[in-house]
Parts: sequence; C-alpha cells; structure tokens
Amino acid sequence: MQRHLVIEAVAPCVDDGAYAVKRVVGDSLEVSADIFRDGHEQIAAQLRLADMRQTPLQWQVQPLQARGNDVYTASTTLTHNTTVAFVIDAWTDHFRTYLHELEKKVEALLQVAVELQEGAILLQRARDAAVAAGAPAAATLSQALDSLQSLGGDPVQSLALLRRADVVDAVHVHLPRLDLLSSRTYRVDVDRPKAVYSTWYEMFVRSAGKQVGQAATLQQARARLPEIAAMGFDVLYLPPIHPIGQSFRKGPNNALQAGPDDPGCPWAIGGAAGGHDAIEPALGTLDDFGDFVEEAQKNGLEVALDFAVQCSPDHPWVKQKPEWFFQRPDKTIKSAENPPKKYEDVYPLNFDCADVEGLQSALLDILFFWIARGVHIFRVDNPHTKPFAFWDWAIEQVHRRHPDVLFLAEAFTRPKVMGRLAKGGFSQSYTYFTWRNTAEELRTYLEELTHGPMRDYFRPNFFVNTPDILPKILQEGGRAAFKMRLLLAATLSPTYGIYSGYELCENAALPNGEEYVDSEKYQVRVRDWAAPANLSGLITQLNGIRRDNVALQRNDPVTFFPVDNPNLLAYGRRSGDNRILCVVNLDPHAAHHGTVSISDAFWGEHVPERYAAYDLLDGATYHWGASNYVRLLPDRQPAHVLSLAPI
Amino acid sequence: MQRHLVIEAVAPCVDDGAYAVKRVVGDSLEVSADIFRDGHEQIAAQLRLADMRQTPLQWQVQPLQARGNDVYTASTTLTHNTTVAFVIDAWTDHFRTYLHELEKKVEALLQVAVELQEGAILLQRARDAAVAAGAPAAATLSQALDSLQSLGGDPVQSLALLRRADVVDAVHVHLPRLDLLSSRTYRVDVDRPKAVYSTWYEMFVRSAGKQVGQAATLQQARARLPEIAAMGFDVLYLPPIHPIGQSFRKGPNNALQAGPDDPGCPWAIGGAAGGHDAIEPALGTLDDFGDFVEEAQKNGLEVALDFAVQCSPDHPWVKQKPEWFFQRPDKTIKSAENPPKKYEDVYPLNFDCADVEGLQSALLDILFFWIARGVHIFRVDNPHTKPFAFWDWAIEQVHRRHPDVLFLAEAFTRPKVMGRLAKGGFSQSYTYFTWRNTAEELRTYLEELTHGPMRDYFRPNFFVNTPDILPKILQEGGRAAFKMRLLLAATLSPTYGIYSGYELCENAALPNGEEYVDSEKYQVRVRDWAAPANLSGLITQLNGIRRDNVALQRNDPVTFFPVDNPNLLAYGRRSGDNRILCVVNLDPHAAHHGTVSISDAFWGEHVPERYAAYDLLDGATYHWGASNYVRLLPDRQPAHVLSLAPI
Repeated sequence: MQRHLVIEAVAPCVDDGAYAVKRVVGDSLEVSADIFRDGHEQIAAQLRLADMRQTPLQWQVQPLQARGNDVYTASTTLTHNTTVAFVIDAWTDHFRTYLHELEKKVEALLQVAVELQEGAILLQRARDAAVAAGAPAAATLSQALDSLQSLGGDPVQSLALLRRADVVDAVHVHLPRLDLLSSRTYRVDVDRPKAVYSTWYEMFVRSAGKQVGQAATLQQARARLPEIAAMGFDVLYLPPIHPIGQSFRKGPNNALQAGPDDPGCPWAIGGAAGGHDAIEPALGTLDDFGDFVEEAQKNGLEVALDFAVQCSPDHPWVKQKPEWFFQRPDKTIKSAENPPKKYEDVYPLNFDCADVEGLQSALLDILFFWIARGVHIFRVDNPHTKPFAFWDWAIEQVHRRHPDVLFLAEAFTRPKVMGRLAKGGFSQSYTYFTWRNTAEELRTYLEELTHGPMRDYFRPNFFVNTPDILPKILQEGGRAAFKMRLLLAATLSPTYGIYSGYELCENAALPNGEEYVDSEKYQVRVRDWAAPANLSGLITQLNGIRRDNVALQRNDPVTFFPVDNPNLLAYGRRSGDNRILCVVNLDPHAAHHGTVSISDAFWGEHVPERYAAYDLLDGATYHWGASNYVRLLPDRQPAHVLSLAPI
Repeated sequence: MQRHLVIEAVAPCVDDGAYAVKRVVGDSLEVSADIFRDGHEQIAAQLRLADMRQTPLQWQVQPLQARGNDVYTASTTLTHNTTVAFVIDAWTDHFRTYLHELEKKVEALLQVAVELQEGAILLQRARDAAVAAGAPAAATLSQALDSLQSLGGDPVQSLALLRRADVVDAVHVHLPRLDLLSSRTYRVDVDRPKAVYSTWYEMFVRSAGKQVGQAATLQQARARLPEIAAMGFDVLYLPPIHPIGQSFRKGPNNALQAGPDDPGCPWAIGGAAGGHDAIEPALGTLDDFGDFVEEAQKNGLEVALDFAVQCSPDHPWVKQKPEWFFQRPDKTIKSAENPPKKYEDVYPLNFDCADVEGLQSALLDILFFWIARGVHIFRVDNPHTKPFAFWDWAIEQVHRRHPDVLFLAEAFTRPKVMGRLAKGGFSQSYTYFTWRNTAEELRTYLEELTHGPMRDYFRPNFFVNTPDILPKILQEGGRAAFKMRLLLAATLSPTYGIYSGYELCENAALPNGEEYVDSEKYQVRVRDWAAPANLSGLITQLNGIRRDNVALQRNDPVTFFPVDNPNLLAYGRRSGDNRILCVVNLDPHAAHHGTVSISDAFWGEHVPERYAAYDLLDGATYHWGASNYVRLLPDRQPAHVLSLAPI
C-alpha cells in the first residue's frame, strides 16, 4: 500500500517526543497535529491515550477534530498522577469520501447506478470484517446491503440508507483501515499539583534552637513548624540530616580546620553513625525524624529532603565499596576538587566504575528508604555533576512505584544542562532568578520560561536566597530589596521559596561574593524570629494571595506591560476570569513613578475603558483603564498586587 | 558506559532530520548544534560529511568549534551537485580535561606526583591504541612516555612535555573515545544554482506561429527562441507536447464538444501516435524536439517539460495496462471528476493498484526518456493528487543518476500539502503569490517563505500568471497592474516566471473566475509580439538587474520596511555589500506617496546618515537616509529598484 498519509507537528511534545511533556492532575491536555494526505480523499484521525503505569496498556480512543488548514485537535482532562502515553492514528476515510461525492452527484441528478454498486462493495467489505470480528454491526451491515439491493437503484432512497447513522457508524468501525498510520508514542508526565504550585521554606534543623550556641534536635525543631506553616508555606526543605564526617571537617566560615565542637557541614555525608540512610546523632533518631515529618504534615507542611550524591571520607561506603569512588594510581580515593581548590571533606562517586549498576541501585535504595519514611519530595544537590542517564533511570524507577514523588534540581549551571535535567524528569528546577534584577532581565527570563518550549518541561522554583546565594541586591538594598524580591518571586512564579533568615532581612555577606557571614552550612545559628521589622507579615499576606488566586498557581505565560520608567516592572497573570496585575518598583533606593499600558491580549478582548483594580496588599481600589499612572516607594509601598475586575 | 553526552538542536535540518535540507552548489553550509555533558569534563566534537552518491561513503572530518553557551559550529562550502550526509560526533576529551586541571595545579605549586602518574596512564592508553592501529603516532607516544619517566616528576617540565603539540595531537587521535556519541545522519540536497535562481517563460509551441488559425510546429517555434532569450529568460517551459487524445476532446473555451479541427488540450495525454514518450504529430517528431532543445540551449534557454501523470482514454496504456487505472464495478475505467463535474477526456492513474511497482517504474522510465533527450527540468502537473511516497521515490531515483535534474511542483493546494511535496524533494514550488496583493499579504507571505523553517526546504517560483490563472488584479488593473506584479515577482523571488501573453498585458477573462478567454489550453493563439505598449523592455531590464545583483539571486530573508502608506510596499534584499531596496506602488489606479523608514538591521550597522540610492530602472541617483519620501505613479513610475551604496 502506498503511503499517502502524513502526521506532522504533533503538540505538545518535547524534542519531537524524545522526552515527556509535563502536566499536573486536573490540567487539560490539548493535543494537536497536522494531518493530511495527497489526493482528494477524506481522512479520519483519532487520539489514543493510555496510562503507561498499567500493563497491559489500555488504550482509550477519541476522535480528533479537523480545525481547518489540516490541523486536528482533541482535548482531555488528566485525572491521574501517572505517565500518560498518547498516539495519533490517521487513515483514509473511503466511505466518507464516497458519500460526499455521491451526495453531490445525486443533488445534480446524475446517473449513479455504478456508484451505488461501489457503495455496496464498501458495505460488503465492512460487513465481512464485522463478521470476522464477531461484531453485532455485522447484522446492521447485512440488512443495509439487503435494503440497498431492494431499492433497485433509486438514488435518493439509496443515499438516505447509506447516510443512516447506524450504517455510517458500522462502516466507520469495521471498514478495514488499510493505510492506517500511527505516530510515535508521546509521553505526558502527569504530576500532582504541587509540582507546579508550591511554597518552600528551607531551614537547618540544628539552627531551630532558642539558646545561642546550642544546636537543636529534630524534637526541638518541631516547635518551629506552626510558625512556618502560619506564614503559608507548604514545603519544608531540610539540608542533609545524615551523619556528618569528621575527616577534614570544615569550621565556621568554611575554615579548613574545625574546632572540637564545630558541627560540620551537612553535605559531608557519612560517619561512624552511618551514611545516607542514617540520621546525624546530634539531631536525633529515625523515630524522631518520623515524628518530625508527622508533626509537619499536621501543620500542612510536607518535608523535602536533600539528596546529595557524595560522601565524606568517613562514609561507610568508602570502606565497603571503595570501587564506587575515583581511585588514584597511588590507591588513594580522589576527593572533590575544582583545581587548584580541593574539597577534602567530600568524595565524589564514580558513575563510570565497573560496578555502576551496584552504585545506582544503592542510590535508588536510599530514595526508597526515605520515601518509606514519608519523604515524597527530594531537593537534589548538584545533579549536573552526575550522569544525565542516572537521573533519567532513577526518577523513572521511583515514579513506577511512587508517581507522586517530586524532584527539585539544584543545578546552578549552564542553561542547556539545566534544560536536559528537566527533560530527564526533574519536576522542578532552581533558576537564575536571584541574578535577574532589571526589568529587561526579568522580562526576557520570564518569557523564556513561560512563553517558549521550556514551559512544557521546565518548572521554575524561584528561591529568593539559598545558603549559598545572598545576591548583591539583597546585600546592598536592605529591607526594601528583601520586600521587592519577595514580591517578585511570589507573584512571578507559582513555586518559590525562601531560605530561613530571609524574613529577618539577614544580609551580611563575606567580601567579594554571595556567601553569608557565619553561614549555617558550617555552624549553628540561633535567631529571634520575632525581631522587629521582620517580613513574616508580608510573607503571610503574599502566600495568602497566592492561595486565593488561581492565576498565581499556574506556569502559564506571564504578560509584561510597557511602562515608561525602566525601574518599574508591570506584569499580569491570568487564569479564566482571575486576572492579577503586579507593578513592582525594582529600585530599593528610590521612589519611582510611571504610566503602565495594559494590552488587549491580557484581557482577551479590548481593554475595558474602566475597570476595578483592587490592591490585595493594602485594600485600596483604583479605577484603571488602558493607561495608568503609578507611583511606588521602596519599603513603604514597593508594589501593587492588583486583582482586576470589570465594573 | 554511562551516557553523559547530549547532542541537541542540530541545524540546519527539516523536521528533525526526517527530510533533506536544500542548498545549491557554492553555498556555505553552516552546521550548528548544542553539545554538552554532565560533570566538569571537557568535550570534543566533530562534523563528518560525506557525498551520499558515492559508495562506500567517504567521510571527511572537521572539528566543531565551541561558540559559548554549549553551541558548536562548523562551516563548509558545498562544491558538488549531490546529496551530502552529515553527522555530528561528540565524546569526552579526558586528556584536555586532565591537562587543564594539571596546569592549574602546577601554577598553584601543588604536589602533582600522582597527577603525573594519571597522565602517564592516559598516554599509555593512547599509545596502546596507536600500536594496535599500526599508527606512526605510537612512536611519538612511546617516546613521550619515556621522557615523562626520565623527568622524575618535575612538574613544570612534565607539563611542558604533555602539552607539546605532537603529543596532544597523538593523544587526541588515538585515546579511545569510549563514550563516543553520534547524531543521526542529516541530509543536504545540493542542487545546481538554477534550483534557486532561474527565470521562466512558459509557451505553447503550437501558438508560436505567425498566421492566425495556423498551429506552429517545433521547427517553426524555434524562431521565437532568440526573442525569449533576449528578454533574459533562462528556462523555457513547454506544456505537454505529447499526442493529444481524441475521445471527449475539448473545444475552445473548454467546450465539451470539439470541432474537427480543434487541437485539443495538451494535458489529455496519449493517442494513436503514442503516450508520454511520444510527440504530438502536429508538433513534429522526436528529432524536431531534439533540434528545438539544441537551438534553445544555443540561446541560453533550458527547456523544461511538463510531467502530467494522467492519460487520455486513447493513451496506449489504457489498452496495454488497464489495471493501472481505476476500474469501476461495470468494468469501465473511471475518468477524472470533481463531483458533480466530470473530466471525461482524462483518466487518472491508480497508485493503489496491484501493479503499483510496474506503474511507478513506467513513470520513472518516462522521466529518464526525456532526460536522455536533454530535458533536465520537469514542471510536474498536480503532484498533490499522486502519492507523496511516489514523488519521494521517483525524485530520489532520478537524482541517483542525474543529480542536476530539477522538479517544479505545480500544487496549488493547502500549505501543508505543498510543504510536504517540497520536503519530499521538489526543487521548486508554485506559490500563492498571484493571490497576495496587499502590502500586509505580501509581507506576511514573504516572511513565511524566507524567514522561517520553509526557507530550508521550499523554494518559491513566483509565476505572475499561468494558463489557469489570470488574477483579478490583472483583469482589472490594466497595464499598470501587469508592470507592478512583474516588478514584485522579479524582485521578491530569485525564481519567477511569466506565461506568454503577459508581456502583451492580455487580460480578457471568462466571467467569474481566472480563466483566460480563448485559452491556449484548447485552441491555437497567434500574437503580435511587437504590439505597441508591450512590456518586453521592462522585462528585459528587470532580468538584467537580476543578473547583475546577487542579492536578487538568493532565497535569503526579505526585509520589509515600514511605510506610512499601505499602498506602498518597501523591502530590501542583501547579499554582502550588494543591497537592493525596492519600493512598489501596489495600487494600479492611483499615485501614492509616503515615507519609507530604513532599519539598522538591513545595513548590519546603523543606517548611514546619507547614502546613495541609484535607481536601476531610470538611472536617477538619490541621497537617502533613515527616512525617505517617495512618490510613485501607476504605469509611468510604479516602482523604485534602488541599489544602495555608502557615500
């Protein structure tokens, strides 16, 4: 059979179907494709969907609708947290082609005796196939054939018979689809909604104490949970809680020598008390961890654990599985380095070793170990320094048993490497947000994230700070900058996070960089969370606004509006009738004013002459139109977060 | 071995490499790809190229250069009319990674004894591979190993040895590329230059006579060749010259009944004198055709033949191969139809018949038959009503033996069907140009053709009219419209054409359509080519301008310039220093004036404050800047065609 049919431009897809598209439960999946053939014959096309986590695959079929210009579409709601496969089928619809031509000939009063014989042949073919399949439609088709015979070639009555819905349906189902063409199988990862919309708080358990110099335990840290939950966070991310190595332990401010009481860096994983599946004794026990997770859940907080694939020299694996590490010619194990710097407290793992399968399966076991203990979110440390293929495999293995598990990629590296990790299955990714400060930088970055192909596979998590990143704008901009960056993160991205201390506007940095002074990475910190001028009020308010406005919960395109002052950033996010418009003063040092121009595209129609703009921050109501004057002050009124409604 | 490497976003390619990219001999092929790996190791990448028409494939290798942001590029000039295959290879460059780190350690005066042992191991691996391959580099590497030994661990001297160019080269070539990753094979069809830049004239041989009512023969038609050549055309396209059927022969103006002397429609192919491999006796013999082709060549004209895959009821195949046609239940052969219309003078061929291989091979033989007689360009009639797969196959078969043969697709159908034919190998395609009249329509269409992905596979041929298409603008706009549309076609597209009679501004149409009155499709026409007010002067001038300006010979993006009057269309085309700027009055009924704004992008730098704009049509020289006032008159001065040069 000649190949007449073409299926092209299938969407959504990532790299022509090489990787899965990302969606969440409740999303509508809108499939489209260009489907056509040569000649004048009509075609039929259908969308097949199956849950890939079920075997055997059970395909659900729905018709694809022609939308003109050879574009076909179908829509379905994604109801399960799983991976969905979809395939597009197309074939020549000989019977519809035939009916269409017969209709025109009958209308034109042409002779159609031979055409009716052709119709009988098509009915026979469908009937024979229905008989072979034991389908009840065989009877319908046999009766139709008899009736056609008995009509003695009457054009109008014969046409009416052939067009009868039951006949058309029976032929549609049973006429052999000799030139059936199927697309490749495309995949859609349907995650739980938190994959897109979540609000993160990062804390070091040991710094949750009340007395200066005293490390807190997991039991003690439980006291912090209600406060964090009250601010509206729903994910509580803990840096590694595993035993910390003694060898080459780092002291305060990354000192090469630790003092006897220094707690060490949590990322130097493994010691006498165990490795990645153990708890640092200073924090407590596995049971304590279980209690902590349970208490967090009661407060609406899901605990996310760090997954750092590296070992301290004291990790049990160093003795048990030396072959999993990089062996040097002198039989020593190679520590991490970035020449000329050496990180002697950390050994990387060697994914090119002979027993890579053993190594990978041990790492997977660690994930399953913590999943069994209530951890269904992992923040993965530096995934880009481990093989892409490992993550592809490990995430797939986890999702086969636990499709709800989320992975956040902490890969502060080059764009394409970050993209590849996301394509490989990471549910969320850290971003360049902390280094995007100007209106132009923010607009360009958000358009890249939300308007282009990245939107289908890369879900941003806008952390405003991390233990490694205290950006210059925060170091220099004071409390006004902390407010401004918080406002941006919370309203630009459905997922964002803060690392504890942000709410206190902590901004003391080591010289020439972004490292915190007295970083918690190397020492215990104790803070007064109720210190004056803290931002917990604003944080609580913003997280409440996010919860009340679905427009802020989706990774949909962000619309930027022209402003005649580059210090002001204006943007809108919309979901159905929920329209949120933000204007933020990007300058923490000075007041700015300007005129914001609202586009028709954002309204989906002409911008109304007047509409209500209700400021969700201060309760003011404005009457806005197409052009609107705005004046914003650092700290005192750094932004409008407006809910728009027609008057 | 773990898969660390990624090759993505390879360009140029069509549909991810499913189809060949189109280029012509002399073009530079600029290949780029995103290439990266996880981790900190450095990578190496190369481009492999081979002539696909040679067996076995002989791969030429050149390095890909890193351009930042993980983008790698390489460039090569395409020197042969063939199909080129290219593949991208990437692998981890362990030795360069090692050297880079060693350098930093030596600079920092660190201990590198173990590192030098690691270097020796890399050298040994490369040496062993070189020995196994019997390569002379084995000696270099063995010597280097000895020297390294004898340096006794001296860091600076050892580093110098390891960095020696011959050592680095030998290791680069011979160190096993254990994680080598190769892309798929991408194809580039390298056509002869005429595939992009050609100037077509269509004529019916039988209408080349001098006496009204008298059909011309091929011998007589030779007299027209110098005149056509003198106008600057280089392709002479002849509608079918094969025997015309008698059964159901059409009369003048598509009358269902032909008179006894009516010559019939050339697309009703096949009669007593033969089929697709014969010459209509009224035109002459195969020898006459050979003389005609030879005479045309002497005049710089290449003859293009029509290839219409359909038969008159009198075609020899109807008796010899009835199985190649559509058989109806009453044993008759189905004629062409578009219900309720019937075209009883034409039988379509059935590519779904049992002997499709016999049919396809007979059609291919016809192409080879005419190729052997000097025809290396085919204008294919309605290719979209034959299987895509047939054209894919037939064009490939022809190109294996005759890569210089060009195919023009006459598919006036939906965009995606036209696109698929081009992807399948058609060298050029008819377009929607005749129906694009407003500035907005022309700009949108040209941007689609020359700015987006189509540019890599779809080469437009802007015919201003055809025997089937006398567009409304020409019917109503008179001589001014003929000039205007000619100017547009000749300067917007590197390939364009006219169907004879255009130069005489023939514009008499049948009512309610685009058909010519007394169309040559059904009768002989005789014209006075020297009639007053004919356009041969303007045609000659435009074709000369095209020949003198390389900017008009390439399918590069057309830049459109804003004008404050929608009746004026301003656009530029550029190749190196050759900058052509056209302003055309699109209204054949009235004078228009306006201001044209020239963009920096077109200059590749800031628009000069003043530059010379030399009008190639009337010889005037203007001093232009960023904004320029223009006034154009229908017919008298319908356009500027300006050559720009700095002052």
